[in-house]
Amino acid sequence: MRVYDIIKKKRDGGELSTAEIEFFIKGYVDGTIPDYQASALCMAIFYVGMTERETADLTMAMAHSGDTVDLSRFGKDTVDKHSTGGVGDKTTLIVAPIVSSLGCVMAKMSGRGLGHTGGTIDKLESVEGFNTALSPEEFFAQVEKIGVAVVGQTGNLTPADKKLYALRDVTATVDSIPLIASSIMSKKLAAGSHTIVLDVKYGSGAFMKTPETAEELAREMVKIGNNCGRNTSAVITNMERPLGLNIGNALEVKEAIDVLNNRGAEDLKEVCLTLATQIVSLSRGISTAEARALTEDALTSGRALLKFKEWISAQGGNGEWVDNPDLFPKADYTYEVKATCDGYIAKTDAEAMGIASVMLGAGRETKDDLIDMSAGIILNKKTGDFVACGDTLATLYSCNKKAFEGAEKRFLSAIELTAVKPENEALIYKIIQ
Amino acid sequence: MRVYDIIKKKRDGGELSTAEIEFFIKGYVDGTIPDYQASALCMAIFYVGMTERETADLTMAMAHSGDTVDLSRFGKDTVDKHSTGGVGDKTTLIVAPIVSSLGCVMAKMSGRGLGHTGGTIDKLESVEGFNTALSPEEFFAQVEKIGVAVVGQTGNLTPADKKLYALRDVTATVDSIPLIASSIMSKKLAAGSHTIVLDVKYGSGAFMKTPETAEELAREMVKIGNNCGRNTSAVITNMERPLGLNIGNALEVKEAIDVLNNRGAEDLKEVCLTLATQIVSLSRGISTAEARALTEDALTSGRALLKFKEWISAQGGNGEWVDNPDLFPKADYTYEVKATCDGYIAKTDAEAMGIASVMLGAGRETKDDLIDMSAGIILNKKTGDFVACGDTLATLYSCNKKAFEGAEKRFLSAIELTAVKPENEALIYKIIQ
Repeated sequence: MRVYDIIKKKRDGGELSTAEIEFFIKGYVDGTIPDYQASALCMAIFYVGMTERETADLTMAMAHSGDTVDLSRFGKDTVDKHSTGGVGDKTTLIVAPIVSSLGCVMAKMSGRGLGHTGGTIDKLESVEGFNTALSPEEFFAQVEKIGVAVVGQTGNLTPADKKLYALRDVTATVDSIPLIASSIMSKKLAAGSHTIVLDVKYGSGAFMKTPETAEELAREMVKIGNNCGRNTSAVITNMERPLGLNIGNALEVKEAIDVLNNRGAEDLKEVCLTLATQIVSLSRGISTAEARALTEDALTSGRALLKFKEWISAQGGNGEWVDNPDLFPKADYTYEVKATCDGYIAKTDAEAMGIASVMLGAGRETKDDLIDMSAGIILNKKTGDFVACGDTLATLYSCNKKAFEGAEKRFLSAIELTAVKPENEALIYKIIQ
Repeated sequence: MRVYDIIKKKRDGGELSTAEIEFFIKGYVDGTIPDYQASALCMAIFYVGMTERETADLTMAMAHSGDTVDLSRFGKDTVDKHSTGGVGDKTTLIVAPIVSSLGCVMAKMSGRGLGHTGGTIDKLESVEGFNTALSPEEFFAQVEKIGVAVVGQTGNLTPADKKLYALRDVTATVDSIPLIASSIMSKKLAAGSHTIVLDVKYGSGAFMKTPETAEELAREMVKIGNNCGRNTSAVITNMERPLGLNIGNALEVKEAIDVLNNRGAEDLKEVCLTLATQIVSLSRGISTAEARALTEDALTSGRALLKFKEWISAQGGNGEWVDNPDLFPKADYTYEVKATCDGYIAKTDAEAMGIASVMLGAGRETKDDLIDMSAGIILNKKTGDFVACGDTLATLYSCNKKAFEGAEKRFLSAIELTAVKPENEALIYKIIQ
């Protein structure tokens, strides 16, 4: 078998065999197939696409290219969620305790933030003492004991995806639905959970800019998951605006605690309940109505909050902070952004807000940047609200006073005011099963 | 400027600016742009194509990526021909003496054979003493004196094309008209001649398989040449069957001498006269009818033959061999291929014949193979001829007796016999100016 023939076959619109896809992934990981042939193949896939079968084969080949997590000791109760990334997205912090309080087992790996989107691992580390680098033994023992653990990515998981994604990133071959879908799903398959619920976001702050492309990606991923024997569904959610009111690590954990106290932003709560409902319904094989009742009860009864505190403490975090969020680190400086005229907020560009929060110190522009856990933004107004000139739109938090000027400018560029009240955009676009 | 943006722009159907194309070629040659980005861009060009302007810019950027040959001392009389490669293609050996006997200046670089197609430099080296590695001083002095010299490629001509072609060759991105056209034309521009006549071949033995794709390539190259200030035309010729009767280095030189003696295969003579007519007409600014009369006269009067002998001698070759071709090296063994049934020859697959001649020792499968100058094939019958069972179809020549079995098999696979006389296919499909 020659990779040249594989490239040419795909280039000319052909369907690659399972053996050809496995040959490519194996050769690319072991270095016998060079980057320049892999990038040519990715560009051909960009134009030609892949069939459902090819995409599933590529996903499996990447999932098995390195270590995999064996969660079989937990039977079929293991669940995972994945978000395609957004601004103010603290859903894992809320969904994990809800579903584990209901008997689901969430033994999860999460990522760090880069660019305008944050990462769950960074957020969790804003809690004093929280350890995101458990040993495998500690990880499994904790899951066994309390049903939930979230750690950073460890081991040599999906090296094929890592290598291929890095290549695609510099060769303009990222934006291909089968390549995106197989990249995400290979990691989820390798991570071992039996039920996978995907939060596919669309809008300015998301990777997919329209609900239609988000749906296409969601359908592709759900097909892969089901083809590979996992219970999979996807919730397509709105990321035209940030999710909830808080952006930034400690600020987001505090907002999650608010929701777990059955307070807090309605949009955030609704997305969390929808995701948790999908997880519980798929995992238990019960109707979504039944699952919804269970998840709502977990939240209103306070059991989810208790589970959250148990989880934080089990992983070395200071549980007191859950009861008293004032203990979270506070920024040295705050700054109020004021409206410069009257109007309804027609747009709250999530990407620009994410960038503004990075400017304040809440995120990384490059992998090695340090994060200011206290930095970020709290929105005082959201899309659809009326503001009068001089009203506070948002409060900025930072330990770097000099950052406010640029961040305010960026923040204001994200806001669009109109004379007429804008129509309410749906929060949940679709659920794909 | 970032190459990522250039790839993405082309990927999405955009037109690259002159500056972007120059940035890419410069960066690729100096190594700041890696192969994997170049191959992704080539694959995007494969799908999206390039405008006339882009193709001309790419050609110029590659032509100026290394040394160029300065032929300005010869004014506007300099002429060049280029063949896209075929089997039995010895036209340069005939066209060069015809046009230089008429005052055109042919200071030409030629290539060696690889795979099923031969190379002019190998053919010339089958003449005892012929030196294809003249120093620049010797080269220019000879051209000054007799108006013709043909040498192997020297110097650092079009390094961008060399590097890019080698990459395209292993990434399935060769078959793109703008990339092929710019590759060929960059070398022709760097080689410095004012008039360029292209012999674009189509058919089984050629790179372009159909007259339509050959025409597309021809039009693209003629446009580039004219856009870059060179007199350019293209003759589209049939390479479904070998050109002339002889395949193999010494055998082809002998056939060229036959034609220069105004004998030999009519198809070969006609292609040579057509190419020479184009060169003389474009170079002199005279009608093709006038030019045709001149080239025919050069051939029939024997002046082209005299010029050929002068050229061979000037470049160190044994001129006696021109008068007495029996002096050329002879193969140790010959073998006659017989027809196994009656019929008209409907097809004489040129590629398979080229491969058969390589099997006999006349060509190279890899760059480092040695050539048997005496090896090859002489066709006793051509497409359209009637053969009776047992008639000799061709004579094979080799110094390796063991090669005959495989070569005969391959040769016979190239021949198709039918009961009805096939229609005569045109030899010259079109002339593009």
